[in-house]
Amino acid sequence: MAYRIITVSRQFGSGGRSIGKKLAERLGYGYYDKELVKQVSMATGFAPEYIEEKGEYAQSRSKLSYLFGVVGTAGVMNGMSATDYLYTMQRKVILDLAEQGNCVIVGRCADYILRDRADTLHTFFHAPVPYRAERIVRLYGESEQSPEKRLADKDGKRRVNYEHFTGRTWGAAEHYDLALNTASIGEDACVELLTRIVLAHE
Amino acid sequence: MAYRIITVSRQFGSGGRSIGKKLAERLGYGYYDKELVKQVSMATGFAPEYIEEKGEYAQSRSKLSYLFGVVGTAGVMNGMSATDYLYTMQRKVILDLAEQGNCVIVGRCADYILRDRADTLHTFFHAPVPYRAERIVRLYGESEQSPEKRLADKDGKRRVNYEHFTGRTWGAAEHYDLALNTASIGEDACVELLTRIVLAHE
Repeated sequence: MAYRIITVSRQFGSGGRSIGKKLAERLGYGYYDKELVKQVSMATGFAPEYIEEKGEYAQSRSKLSYLFGVVGTAGVMNGMSATDYLYTMQRKVILDLAEQGNCVIVGRCADYILRDRADTLHTFFHAPVPYRAERIVRLYGESEQSPEKRLADKDGKRRVNYEHFTGRTWGAAEHYDLALNTASIGEDACVELLTRIVLAHE
Repeated sequence: MAYRIITVSRQFGSGGRSIGKKLAERLGYGYYDKELVKQVSMATGFAPEYIEEKGEYAQSRSKLSYLFGVVGTAGVMNGMSATDYLYTMQRKVILDLAEQGNCVIVGRCADYILRDRADTLHTFFHAPVPYRAERIVRLYGESEQSPEKRLADKDGKRRVNYEHFTGRTWGAAEHYDLALNTASIGEDACVELLTRIVLAHE
């Protein structure tokens, strides 16, 4: 039987999100990225913007921010910091989505949260810095920061967030069924290849 | 034009070597694993067994062993420890093989040594411990150590060796064009998928 769930993890600017979206369209699967944010917003009462900002990105590289920083700005939920509470609720939404099946879930530690499900294919996308730098400027425009700095900042925050909640190394090949360099394989070829693997799964 | 060189890095017992061999057969490419050991032996005078043992596997997890341990047992070549000398000669053989092209090269930091060649596809293979444990017992038989311990030892040594000579993290997805879980994708499917990618490369 085809894989029912595909998790997509990615370096910022690698095109992983876009590949996940195309893959969902090809397979006729649900696609959860912004949609997931909406569901978490309904469940928690947090604003979508807050969830987008904090759901994948750590406040800073310091673990202390988890313990003290966030509490100061958003209070404590059930004895948890706002960030931990948000993770707990995101986790619950992801587990619920997985139960429904036939979906692509982008980011938010879904690879870790669903690590024990045999019907789930875990993917990771990355690309060299020059490729990603050109891509984010083309898609999201220029900003005050250099594209290289934007990449490093965003990936740094994803890494800290991931490692804090999972205890695993972000981007280690062994956590993914497939890890692909989108610059060398090509976005469309990635979609083709994944479609084939998802459908061929027994 | 098809990729002319494929480097294969792998966790011990993942089946990466076997996939590399089948891929070379499918493509009609040279396959360098034991063959590479022979060439290094000719170039250095070291016994093939010594090269197999030391060419990919660090002595221990201590960096000091590189500085002192090895020198004590095998002397110093041109002011280098035997391990560093062996790496230098292996590197030279790998660069020469790459110039000839149309080949699959297994292990020995070839992914790092050939990182700047656009005609090279870098692959990494891994699989969960239970899959690899079963596989090594089936292929190589039992030993006094548990299979899990053998896996941890061998991968630990590969990791130290790789990190010593390359300064990079072993098994980080971003160093490879494709990193595949052989247990979930399947060995033959990996060969199919890679054949397709190698031949489709422009």
